[in-house]
Amino acid sequence: MAEVILEACESKTLFPGYEARFIHTDRMTLAYVSVEAGAELPEHNHHNEQVVNVLSGEFELVVEGTPHVLKPGVAYVIPPNVKHSGRARSECTILDVFSPVREDWL
Amino acid sequence: MAEVILEACESKTLFPGYEARFIHTDRMTLAYVSVEAGAELPEHNHHNEQVVNVLSGEFELVVEGTPHVLKPGVAYVIPPNVKHSGRARSECTILDVFSPVREDWL
Repeated sequence: MAEVILEACESKTLFPGYEARFIHTDRMTLAYVSVEAGAELPEHNHHNEQVVNVLSGEFELVVEGTPHVLKPGVAYVIPPNVKHSGRARSECTILDVFSPVREDWL
Repeated sequence: MAEVILEACESKTLFPGYEARFIHTDRMTLAYVSVEAGAELPEHNHHNEQVVNVLSGEFELVVEGTPHVLKPGVAYVIPPNVKHSGRARSECTILDVFSPVREDWL
């Protein structure tokens, strides 16, 4: 893997309204996620560190009960094993970065 | 660190024309880089894996002598220790993701 044309990557539905394409390296997973307006992210957690980057739109991320409105310029770092959920306040594109690799998505 | 307002983060000049803000987690560094049109990235390498995401504009990345035009939707994975250089074909914003952490930028 070197140059990656994201449109040519297979997409996967993570949850209803969440379509993702992935880059997996040795140490990281990058998930490029298209989210439908209003789509709900069920509460979940994982051992991987995550940084959420909203590239367009607005996303409400709820971390341990506290809501945060994320948009371009406002990122969020989710430590390992911390429960989070969310809802797209508009159509969004999100770049989620994880380490280590999301083995469950390989 | 949790919610990060990028404009409030200190910026650092990586090279002339390359202004960056950072998020460092335990395992990753995310660098949000504003690049002036025409700015040259000198050849360099590092032991960290890197994924280059051009969020706006066009950037020519040269990896081991081969040029690649990167833009939104075309990412590039640079393995550890591989020499790379580049040039901004226009004003760009780039999100570079590294693992492990860029200790040299802490």
